[in-house]
Amino acid sequence: MIKQVPATHPRLKSLIIREKLVNGFTRGLVAREGLIAHGRGEAFDYLLGEKTSAFALDATQAAAATLLLAKQPIISVNGNVAAVSATDIIELSKYANAPLEVNLFYRDKKREQAIERELLKYGATKVFGVGPNASARLPDLDSERRKVDPRGILVADVVVVPLEDGDRAEALVKMGKKIIAIDLNPLSRTASIADITIVDNITRAIPSLVYAIKRINNLTNKEKQKIVNKFDNKRALAKSLEIIRGAMT
Amino acid sequence: MIKQVPATHPRLKSLIIREKLVNGFTRGLVAREGLIAHGRGEAFDYLLGEKTSAFALDATQAAAATLLLAKQPIISVNGNVAAVSATDIIELSKYANAPLEVNLFYRDKKREQAIERELLKYGATKVFGVGPNASARLPDLDSERRKVDPRGILVADVVVVPLEDGDRAEALVKMGKKIIAIDLNPLSRTASIADITIVDNITRAIPSLVYAIKRINNLTNKEKQKIVNKFDNKRALAKSLEIIRGAMT
Repeated sequence: MIKQVPATHPRLKSLIIREKLVNGFTRGLVAREGLIAHGRGEAFDYLLGEKTSAFALDATQAAAATLLLAKQPIISVNGNVAAVSATDIIELSKYANAPLEVNLFYRDKKREQAIERELLKYGATKVFGVGPNASARLPDLDSERRKVDPRGILVADVVVVPLEDGDRAEALVKMGKKIIAIDLNPLSRTASIADITIVDNITRAIPSLVYAIKRINNLTNKEKQKIVNKFDNKRALAKSLEIIRGAMT
Repeated sequence: MIKQVPATHPRLKSLIIREKLVNGFTRGLVAREGLIAHGRGEAFDYLLGEKTSAFALDATQAAAATLLLAKQPIISVNGNVAAVSATDIIELSKYANAPLEVNLFYRDKKREQAIERELLKYGATKVFGVGPNASARLPDLDSERRKVDPRGILVADVVVVPLEDGDRAEALVKMGKKIIAIDLNPLSRTASIADITIVDNITRAIPSLVYAIKRINNLTNKEKQKIVNKFDNKRALAKSLEIIRGAMT
């Protein structure tokens, strides 16, 4: 499809990510609703100037410290993440010492397996939450969205949720888990409910998060905790909103 | 899919439209990229409060007058429009005395025919731009996007483009055509290039446009022209931006 788009197109980078996603759809990783969700993200990224803000970097730094302080962190992976950021998320898993768990809004055995295969192909050593392994249930959620892995999200203290649904983010918060969200919409429920929200495109945010982890890995726990304590999610969200407002003038 | 979404979901209406689109995708009307484009629209509609603004109504009124004054108006229909607004667009075609032309970014014979069938099924009497009928070419555009019907868009003086690509909108403007766009992103190239931009969801905008046509149909041409002259697209776009900025506080 990208072949039909001229190289002079003003939004080429965004189109290349889109192409990856459409490709992921064709290969059974991405749900139809995942394509729509991607479009929503595109709109917000466009309003953010398709750039990582200083406030997103603050959140990234706090997320890195939180992950390094976590006892049992986990990274939730859906079809869009696997299609666009498979290698990045595996890198993050390694440096954050956090396993990957397939966690889908629309569960579907074939899609779960396709995502698992994709992650294994790019170097993941283990993938939680696939098929019968998603045998535990989150409270207060309907049907398929409840299912999680009893070795993974169920028992984790910190959950990284790139591109998460608001209801599910809320259910995790209610269970007392710390949530690190990556969400381009600073007004979303996930963004406002999370402990740390990185308002940035996952293709920029996840590599930054890996970098931040490497950079602060040698700090003492006390220093890491200081980074976490200094971060104010409400303020960071308000600042992201300001950037979008600026784009509207 | 909508079955999995609880009735208490805060964005049910938007989810129902999404369901229609996904359905249209399954039936071969909508391209994968159309699903993504819909997501972008959803984000802007969300920022507009999912409501029709007074400025969108002004644009609608001007669009109605422009259509009634047109010599050879035409309505461009893509897969998303057919999936979400087939009956509405046929109604508009009737009252505006403007034929429907299938006009796709990603041309594909099967999809063109599926859209034609859908429109005929819902009561259209004729559909331009399908298969070999799209034998004319717009200047300054690459490949498949150039193709138009020589009886339709090529010779029209006024073109209604709900959900149009910026390049193509520009090509039409360069040919001296008056463009009426329906576009939820007031910052898009299509929105800024069009003579009249209705910044609204097509599911609300098209019925409003039909209503406006009925209401002003009996005015004299001079009175209709007055409505057109009074409308200022730049101002209306700025006002829509203001609404979105308001949502950001």
